[in-house]
Amino acid sequence: MEFHFLGTGAGVPSLTRNVSSLAVRFLQQKGAQWLFDCGEATQHQLMRSAISPSRIDRVFITHLHGDHIYGLPGFLGTRSFQGAVTPITIYGPPGLEAFIQASLNVSATYLRYELIIVEVEHGLIIDTDFAEVSVLALQHTLDSFAFRIKEKPKPGILDVEKLRSLNVEPGPVYQKLKQGESVELADGRILHGQEFLGPEKPGRVVVIAGDSKPVIELIAFAESADLLIHEATFRSGREVDAHEFGHSTIADAASIAKAANVKQLILTHISSRYVMEEEELKQEAAEAYEGTMVANDLLVYTLQAKER
Amino acid sequence: MEFHFLGTGAGVPSLTRNVSSLAVRFLQQKGAQWLFDCGEATQHQLMRSAISPSRIDRVFITHLHGDHIYGLPGFLGTRSFQGAVTPITIYGPPGLEAFIQASLNVSATYLRYELIIVEVEHGLIIDTDFAEVSVLALQHTLDSFAFRIKEKPKPGILDVEKLRSLNVEPGPVYQKLKQGESVELADGRILHGQEFLGPEKPGRVVVIAGDSKPVIELIAFAESADLLIHEATFRSGREVDAHEFGHSTIADAASIAKAANVKQLILTHISSRYVMEEEELKQEAAEAYEGTMVANDLLVYTLQAKER
Repeated sequence: MEFHFLGTGAGVPSLTRNVSSLAVRFLQQKGAQWLFDCGEATQHQLMRSAISPSRIDRVFITHLHGDHIYGLPGFLGTRSFQGAVTPITIYGPPGLEAFIQASLNVSATYLRYELIIVEVEHGLIIDTDFAEVSVLALQHTLDSFAFRIKEKPKPGILDVEKLRSLNVEPGPVYQKLKQGESVELADGRILHGQEFLGPEKPGRVVVIAGDSKPVIELIAFAESADLLIHEATFRSGREVDAHEFGHSTIADAASIAKAANVKQLILTHISSRYVMEEEELKQEAAEAYEGTMVANDLLVYTLQAKER
Repeated sequence: MEFHFLGTGAGVPSLTRNVSSLAVRFLQQKGAQWLFDCGEATQHQLMRSAISPSRIDRVFITHLHGDHIYGLPGFLGTRSFQGAVTPITIYGPPGLEAFIQASLNVSATYLRYELIIVEVEHGLIIDTDFAEVSVLALQHTLDSFAFRIKEKPKPGILDVEKLRSLNVEPGPVYQKLKQGESVELADGRILHGQEFLGPEKPGRVVVIAGDSKPVIELIAFAESADLLIHEATFRSGREVDAHEFGHSTIADAASIAKAANVKQLILTHISSRYVMEEEELKQEAAEAYEGTMVANDLLVYTLQAKER
């Protein structure tokens, strides 16, 4: 999985950080591309990235603040203008559909493709052939969500050597065994897939959290995640201010990651007040929880496949 | 007057031309700043210009297509975030208010300043102490306007030499004469302001037209204008395509400028299909009507004061 950080700033754009957006590319799923949040000028950032609007088929909105949604109407219009005809589904809090429809209607924007808007609130919202997505409610100044992507395990590798030693030649039988099915051979022998499959390749778990003060429920939601992407609008020590505005500090995000035993934490939604303190911010993050990174605009982070 | 071309592209942003927006700065009016159209990422372009959101007190929207309005909600929110408390008035076609309110409401955007939205259709819409603004309906695929800014003439210079030769000394009398009033002196003499004032300094006329196929009414509306800013979405020779989509070619815009005896024509709303033909485009424009310019993003054009 590749994570393309398109906008990593908080509230308003600056010359170095645009407002929120993150694209996820599933390298093994025919390049499926999902977008998380779509602040103003996300389509401009996409032009500077390897992600194409027409390839994005799902958009997830963590919450309805302007710096997370004002880029949606332009993104949708441009996706159509560029010739996309495949459907797109947008998931987000109640109110999302009214905003999108008002924007498209007033501007007489015709989309060549089907637009599906799903207002979500909690629990499992998607179950595709390669991943499940669940929603957790956070605590911000308005409804805000974390999304968890849980990849499905991949079947183990078929033990071809073992099959050959039993004089079973490649063919449709192999396909069935690969799926874990049982097969009766022409000579009457019955083979069970599980006896010829190596261990499953476990799926990865990624949690992408919207704006929020630290919430205890996120610890269980992100338990043992391979990657947690969390906001850090304030530096450590400014918890009182942060929580008053429904935000987190670096220390808050690190505490969650540590309690959840997350393997990698990446911080985003960085306030423009820290533009002169980038290096200190990065050092503070790395010390707060091992290996924690602070995202920059156009950073591409690759999450490796798990060992079998 | 300074014209800051913030976005000069048509329909969708490209890496070199953003979608439509133009800021006008009135150098002699305490730096009053107006904005014409506000496509997505106009606030990003403002960061790269000398224009500040907080100083803009009027916004004019030529029409409601997304590439002219999707930057409004973010611009308004950022203007508040940056601390502006002075009112702003937005003028545009019917439907504008519903879009702005839907966007601000869904995102729970609170503005520290008063927002006034005026839906206009034709005729004189503003009469300030230094300029009048009128609207003309154009012909596009939805309501589209041209705005004409007509500066008021400035009073002539007071002939101080002549007054001194009549033994009239500087003081309140001078102020009254400067305003063109009549004054009775202590010795009984009566002086008439007009007899001591040089010629008035005529105001400038600027027309900023939205997307449109060429319309005959624009010729009278822009008659003898000092500056006409007109779209040219297509190159000359592609009139059939242009008019079908409610747009103009370079030749169309030049014809209007010529018939109206406009002193300077600047073309904008340039299609990204011409990104490799910039030089040819500029040459074609210059030949189509004397001195015609093709705007680029962040171009600043200064319109000189008129001779008395």
